[in-house]
Amino acid sequence: MTKTVTFAGDTHSLALGQRSLAPDATLHPLLPVLISGAPISGEQHWNYPLDIAFDYAAVDTSLFDQAPLAGLARWAPLLPPLDPMLSFGEGGTPLIPLSTAATSTELPVFLKDESRNPTWSHKDRLNLCTVSTAVRSGAKGVVVASSGNHGISTAAYAARANLPCVVLTPSEISKTFLAMLKAYGACPVPVETAHRWPMVRAICEQAGYHPTSNLTPFHTGHPFGPEGYKTIAYEIFLQLGRVVPGAVVVPTGYGEQLFGIAKGFRELVTLGLAPDMPRLFSVEPSARGPLHRAVQTNEPMAMVEAGETRQYSIACTASGYRGVLALEAGRGSALTVDDASVSAAQAVLGREGIWQELSSCAALAALPQVLASGLSGPIVLIGTSGGFKDPIEAEILPVVEPSFARVAEHVKANSGIDLRS
Amino acid sequence: MTKTVTFAGDTHSLALGQRSLAPDATLHPLLPVLISGAPISGEQHWNYPLDIAFDYAAVDTSLFDQAPLAGLARWAPLLPPLDPMLSFGEGGTPLIPLSTAATSTELPVFLKDESRNPTWSHKDRLNLCTVSTAVRSGAKGVVVASSGNHGISTAAYAARANLPCVVLTPSEISKTFLAMLKAYGACPVPVETAHRWPMVRAICEQAGYHPTSNLTPFHTGHPFGPEGYKTIAYEIFLQLGRVVPGAVVVPTGYGEQLFGIAKGFRELVTLGLAPDMPRLFSVEPSARGPLHRAVQTNEPMAMVEAGETRQYSIACTASGYRGVLALEAGRGSALTVDDASVSAAQAVLGREGIWQELSSCAALAALPQVLASGLSGPIVLIGTSGGFKDPIEAEILPVVEPSFARVAEHVKANSGIDLRS
Repeated sequence: MTKTVTFAGDTHSLALGQRSLAPDATLHPLLPVLISGAPISGEQHWNYPLDIAFDYAAVDTSLFDQAPLAGLARWAPLLPPLDPMLSFGEGGTPLIPLSTAATSTELPVFLKDESRNPTWSHKDRLNLCTVSTAVRSGAKGVVVASSGNHGISTAAYAARANLPCVVLTPSEISKTFLAMLKAYGACPVPVETAHRWPMVRAICEQAGYHPTSNLTPFHTGHPFGPEGYKTIAYEIFLQLGRVVPGAVVVPTGYGEQLFGIAKGFRELVTLGLAPDMPRLFSVEPSARGPLHRAVQTNEPMAMVEAGETRQYSIACTASGYRGVLALEAGRGSALTVDDASVSAAQAVLGREGIWQELSSCAALAALPQVLASGLSGPIVLIGTSGGFKDPIEAEILPVVEPSFARVAEHVKANSGIDLRS
Repeated sequence: MTKTVTFAGDTHSLALGQRSLAPDATLHPLLPVLISGAPISGEQHWNYPLDIAFDYAAVDTSLFDQAPLAGLARWAPLLPPLDPMLSFGEGGTPLIPLSTAATSTELPVFLKDESRNPTWSHKDRLNLCTVSTAVRSGAKGVVVASSGNHGISTAAYAARANLPCVVLTPSEISKTFLAMLKAYGACPVPVETAHRWPMVRAICEQAGYHPTSNLTPFHTGHPFGPEGYKTIAYEIFLQLGRVVPGAVVVPTGYGEQLFGIAKGFRELVTLGLAPDMPRLFSVEPSARGPLHRAVQTNEPMAMVEAGETRQYSIACTASGYRGVLALEAGRGSALTVDDASVSAAQAVLGREGIWQELSSCAALAALPQVLASGLSGPIVLIGTSGGFKDPIEAEILPVVEPSFARVAEHVKANSGIDLRS
């Protein structure tokens, strides 16, 4: 069955609906977006995430004969319905060969430099999808809890969508982060960590906003987001000359990018374009590493203590089930690296002329562990963002009381955005 | 005559030599690099700049049938000899359509987003060429006087070339700038403004370093640099569907990018690929504007007072002759814009999800003047770098005494680089 979903200003998508990642794989309609995860049945106390199901039989594989240029709308059939007006040259990021001096191996190793995106991180691939969905859902605005790349990217796409944007931040944030949010016209609202997610929910429920993540206590992520990350797999495959790498190494927070990359490679197999998948390796800070814990304990997800780490962008205390699924699909391992080895990797990349944020450098720091697993073929490290995203100078902002009324007052006073209108 | 110049690890270049931009257009060999400008004859008291001459008759124009992906080595026949190991995905930057809300015109207007380069500015196109030339010249290191994008980019390419790099900076510099230089392993040396250029010369002469700009009292620029900028013209032409835009609007400092873009479009005409050139507009801060002055006074170059402006990247007090030549070739005008209008343009771009450095926004600020000139066809604004390059936090460093000995001591103490070895 061929089914093409469209909306105003739409590109043609072969998306069929939201599919639960629970074993029953229930298919739900594309809208409303299940931002609280797959509906719970019976005794279960946590929600499964979802992804998007596609009509693969209807895909014209000549789609993959094009050059891997920027602009994700070129992959529209395999993405959720996009608002092409939101696209501003996401993706098409270069695959940079690293020197053997940097990698200490004769195997070819590449860095996929996601700092070349519109807001200089991989998150733009996700937010093209999530903010398109916000537009399609008729949301009054966009809200996200973030202290970094995700919030910046959400703010930029909300601006393109002409939607107000509220970003719930920690009270101590980097000046660059703050400057970027303001440049895109978003309103940062500092609230205490424990209150950030409840406030996202309050703003969604009371102001009609759409989140670019999720509303579940356990992380499920936005159902539409990881589809954007799939294009990383498409590009790597084409950039290597229609070759599947031996391994892809992914700095991992909630595992959304990892899941998206795994899904992209699996689709290449499904479509008959690639013979098999690469091995996938997640890399987390050794001070935390909830996905590593989940894999060790054979649980769908895990929580860990908030150990100290400077790998801010991947410093999660809860893992996402998507990460587990991705590692299963990619015959992968959940690796961890300490801050010292990541700092050393950052310096090594600097000597290659590449300045990545510290979290990004976790992939290179994990390379000895990846090589020890005895694989062949080229290795691709995912570089998520530029070094300028790490806090060079911090600013301490007074926190806002965690009530919708106080948050709405703060937003109104600081940005003119009226959450009650 | 077909002549292909190569060196170790080289790509094939059809470069013939360095050509003086004086009316006599004397052709000099490719090496040594004439970093002090074209040799002076007779009464003349200033040096003409040079560019590179190519054997256009030997160019296979199927070169332009390729997709405008990142990686400038793809244009090797029309570039000076490159060290392909230095390339890490320069160029191939997206051409982003701006909304009519942002531009107040029905004409299509695009931003060429050069913040998508390896060090997030247009300068990477230039430094691939200049640092390749440093390698080819057998230089012991690379030196540049810069307070921003140029120094950052030089540092990154020097790192890739495994050459030490010294950057002569002002004493007050942004923390981001400092962090980037250090990440790439370069040594910043704060010296007073008047001493920066003499110190570049001293380091070239006494330490055997190669500059990525020039050594002349009047700006001539590195002969090889603007060739890298030509690729911006090639990409725009292909991205518009083999169409020459009506106008290209370029934030202008010394006019090297402007010259490069003009040369690229002229080459498309020479090669029979395009019918004519776009009109070219330079944009400078109204508080300075030496190119505007030179055009007004019909002089090859001009000096102006150092008026106050926050458009740091284009805040020159001396113009380059290349700028005059580019505007002549492009039937262009030298425009100026004040800081207030540029700040307003930066906010407008922010609402498009685009955060450009302030100087970049001069192009959009000048758009009403460009439109008043009554042109047709699409307009391309050059966006040079991201907003995070503007000083968010400044650091004040103690200046170093302007003697080679003191500078060498400072470099040794702070970076281990020995300028005397």
